[in-house]
Amino acid sequence: MFIKNAWYVACRPEEIQDKPLGRKICGESIVFYRGHHQQVFAVEDFCPHRGAPLSLGYVENGELVCGYHGLVMGCEGKTVSMPGQRVSGFPCNKAFAVIEKFGFIWVWPGNKEDADLDALPELEWADNPEWSYGGGLFHIHCDYKLMIDNLMDLTHETYVHSSSIGQKEIDEAAPTTKVEGDHVITERYMENIYAPPFWQMALRGNKLPDDVLIDRWQRCHFYAPSNVHIEVGVALAGHGGYHAAQSKKVSSIVVDFITPETETSHWYFWGMARNFQPGNQELTDSIREGQGKIFSEDLDMLERQQKNILNHPNRKLLMLNIDAGGVQSRKIIDRLLEAEKPITPISGQTRQFPNIRII
Amino acid sequence: MFIKNAWYVACRPEEIQDKPLGRKICGESIVFYRGHHQQVFAVEDFCPHRGAPLSLGYVENGELVCGYHGLVMGCEGKTVSMPGQRVSGFPCNKAFAVIEKFGFIWVWPGNKEDADLDALPELEWADNPEWSYGGGLFHIHCDYKLMIDNLMDLTHETYVHSSSIGQKEIDEAAPTTKVEGDHVITERYMENIYAPPFWQMALRGNKLPDDVLIDRWQRCHFYAPSNVHIEVGVALAGHGGYHAAQSKKVSSIVVDFITPETETSHWYFWGMARNFQPGNQELTDSIREGQGKIFSEDLDMLERQQKNILNHPNRKLLMLNIDAGGVQSRKIIDRLLEAEKPITPISGQTRQFPNIRII
Amino acid sequence: MFIKNAWYVACRPEEIQDKPLGRKICGESIVFYRGHHQQVFAVEDFCPHRGAPLSLGYVENGELVCGYHGLVMGCEGKTVSMPGQRVSGFPCNKAFAVIEKFGFIWVWPGNKEDADLDALPELEWADNPEWSYGGGLFHIHCDYKLMIDNLMDLTHETYVHSSSIGQKEIDEAAPTTKVEGDHVITERYMENIYAPPFWQMALRGNKLPDDVLIDRWQRCHFYAPSNVHIEVGVALAGHGGYHAAQSKKVSSIVVDFITPETETSHWYFWGMARNFQPGNQELTDSIREGQGKIFSEDLDMLERQQKNILNHPNRKLLMLNIDAGGVQSRKIIDRLLEAEKPITPISGQTRQFPNIRII
Repeated sequence: MFIKNAWYVACRPEEIQDKPLGRKICGESIVFYRGHHQQVFAVEDFCPHRGAPLSLGYVENGELVCGYHGLVMGCEGKTVSMPGQRVSGFPCNKAFAVIEKFGFIWVWPGNKEDADLDALPELEWADNPEWSYGGGLFHIHCDYKLMIDNLMDLTHETYVHSSSIGQKEIDEAAPTTKVEGDHVITERYMENIYAPPFWQMALRGNKLPDDVLIDRWQRCHFYAPSNVHIEVGVALAGHGGYHAAQSKKVSSIVVDFITPETETSHWYFWGMARNFQPGNQELTDSIREGQGKIFSEDLDMLERQQKNILNHPNRKLLMLNIDAGGVQSRKIIDRLLEAEKPITPISGQTRQFPNIRII
Repeated sequence: MFIKNAWYVACRPEEIQDKPLGRKICGESIVFYRGHHQQVFAVEDFCPHRGAPLSLGYVENGELVCGYHGLVMGCEGKTVSMPGQRVSGFPCNKAFAVIEKFGFIWVWPGNKEDADLDALPELEWADNPEWSYGGGLFHIHCDYKLMIDNLMDLTHETYVHSSSIGQKEIDEAAPTTKVEGDHVITERYMENIYAPPFWQMALRGNKLPDDVLIDRWQRCHFYAPSNVHIEVGVALAGHGGYHAAQSKKVSSIVVDFITPETETSHWYFWGMARNFQPGNQELTDSIREGQGKIFSEDLDMLERQQKNILNHPNRKLLMLNIDAGGVQSRKIIDRLLEAEKPITPISGQTRQFPNIRII
Repeated sequence: MFIKNAWYVACRPEEIQDKPLGRKICGESIVFYRGHHQQVFAVEDFCPHRGAPLSLGYVENGELVCGYHGLVMGCEGKTVSMPGQRVSGFPCNKAFAVIEKFGFIWVWPGNKEDADLDALPELEWADNPEWSYGGGLFHIHCDYKLMIDNLMDLTHETYVHSSSIGQKEIDEAAPTTKVEGDHVITERYMENIYAPPFWQMALRGNKLPDDVLIDRWQRCHFYAPSNVHIEVGVALAGHGGYHAAQSKKVSSIVVDFITPETETSHWYFWGMARNFQPGNQELTDSIREGQGKIFSEDLDMLERQQKNILNHPNRKLLMLNIDAGGVQSRKIIDRLLEAEKPITPISGQTRQFPNIRII
């Protein structure tokens, strides 16, 4: 069960540059392609003729053509034409609201007419010349909510990423969590500590000393349905930490778009946005490579965790204070799922009329 | 559910040259081997002793020997001997009618005593010195009926095989379909067109010009249970097309023996029979290689179509006029399946006697 | 269903030398590790915090640490500590009795308090300077009972291992089987035969002629729950066979510890113990290599047998006199399984009181 009335990142623009892309999102098989004027469209990935995946086809004159027998599928899910056939009676495919923005293709898996542009997240760093973004995509075989838990509780850095961003002081600094509507914030501040290797490198890259005491922060933001953005950084100790002047700190935003595929798999669009040296492409590439290595350390853990949970269906998991971010995020997800449920009459119960007793 | 009372191609002779072959056909696990006098036999691939596959064994003195503990299985499914054991009480294996003919091993998955030699197809090109045949085998993970549909509707050539045998004019020439007993014929004729690359090559190979107008034909024959033979060819335009003199045309028969394995997989014996340059082995090899490449283009499409259909169990597929060949072929299959059903009393219903009312 | 109240070989010491090992045994996911003083411990491989496999973690100061968020798991299954958390209310993991002996790590999958040291097998060859042992481990996808059948009926050597230890005379010498408590013995003696290649090599290695008549023996011992030890050897003919003087024979013990994983897979610890040239490490390595090759010939047969049996659920297997060893071993297993069943009141039946009739 997935929140359907929300925007999810479906793919990066380069994934649909030359040909259609088939991707399952929130249980829906969808084909994404660029049609007329390079606009992106998304329809059910199923040819109404013989069930072939439309994503095996191609785009011709801005129209999606099935690669099996040439059916031309319209961007609204109605068959446009097919060689030698009258197509007016063909059953319609589901079409999906889709939009290209902030360097991503976004899809709304629910009803197209309900798609709400105002529900798109606001990303201050996107389309902003003072910022730069680099990232990648992992296909991960676990429930997307395990990834949310992972990102909303960064104590795992100490163990999973011990040689780059982990350090004991993370465990020692209790986080605080607050909820604002569909937004969860989990914050942790560490003062007068030494930077772990990744941040030492970042300090040097910004011409700051890497062997002095620093203040470090992690501010994890969950936004429904499933995006986590984490403000991370270090500042020379005693200069205000998170609020320190640009010249005294290095900071960036870890950007995570988490798109469910099935109940036990998801697409993980990870990346980093930074507002220093935004034009330095070499730095962007080097950060992407380093981040890719660090984030791939989570893969095995999350997939094995998923298997272990499936193998132990009767064991309940603990929700400790460090898990508050994940717990609150899941509460929002559950509330939104509940709100999407159709109202159905209670079954198996005789309708009661006042003053009438059923004997 | 499969038609059991029919001949299917089980394997090529070279597959059982040196050792037994285990193959599942119409849901039956069968071991094929050459016994006395090189005759081919087929029995259930299950050792009555401990259930080992007999196909892991070997043939000794014309008898099939289990490779686990040496049980000797007779060609009629009765255990012949076993070291140190009296075998008269051993349970029998099912034995299958099997015959070597036309360069193939054929099996009858139904009861052996019902096997009818007259039901073998007639292949004018086989064992005929004026003809030559070359082919191959693919193991395909889709319902064999999807392959029949594929071959009985050649409009897919325009899309799946666009660089070899496909051309727009196929779509434009409506096919006609007729049924004669258990035989379906779908025909398409194209006149005054230019040959696509594969046929240009064939014209040159027959010392005919490749850049002039031609007439092209496709005559697809479905024969129950699941064989499709397609007469294909091109003739210089205006010389009678299909009926043109040998010197004005190039033609051949695409030979497809489609043997079900499970409900969602089959063995696909493809090939080509030709009546020009029959002694030219180099040409046979070169045609086989080209055909193998072209036919492998169907594999991904068919397997992905199968998955897509399984993922969308509630979607009905369309049956257009171009699908008439497949539709009629499936009707014959359904009729033959129905005919094989044992007659059973209607369950869940009280037997009705005339003049007796149940109150 | 597995016998839980018994010792099984879990792993070799080298498998837990540097880091914890996760292994499923008798359906239980278990992590094995060396704690304080290098002692081996075993607990459920499931972190009570978020369900991560503890086997992805590490050992620090003799304690097992979860690699996800640093929970410290005690050797008794109670959480010892977790950074920033009070752990007294954490649910307990199952802990398993485990012991290191005879060069192996042994586990008792049943309740720890029931673990009985006296139930460990006695291995005369282990920890004995006059003997030497070498072996390996296979992960095999079949019911462990098929492996017991395999080892308790060595007629398969003639077919599966025809080029090394197999010979026709095995089939011709009927075995005798006797049962002593939870111990089954199947014996076979062959007199005045020639040695097959493996034993020729062994004779030469012991400076005995390899081309003269010999006596050969196989004495298979099954010990509950699932260990098979086979006394094998050859002696120069007429010197007493099994009882011949050391100088006239070559003999060894084939050691098989068979540890169930799931109903259709197991861990197979195979090896050979010998009491000649015990200090010759080169010989140990060469025997291990040869035995590994021979025993790997069983793998394909057993896994294909398992598949074939699953595919033919209605076929019963035969139990011939050669199978007596396996049959008797399975009877013991069934009896021990029955004995482990909890006594439950018969369900679906009204409790009857004398003199009271329920109307």
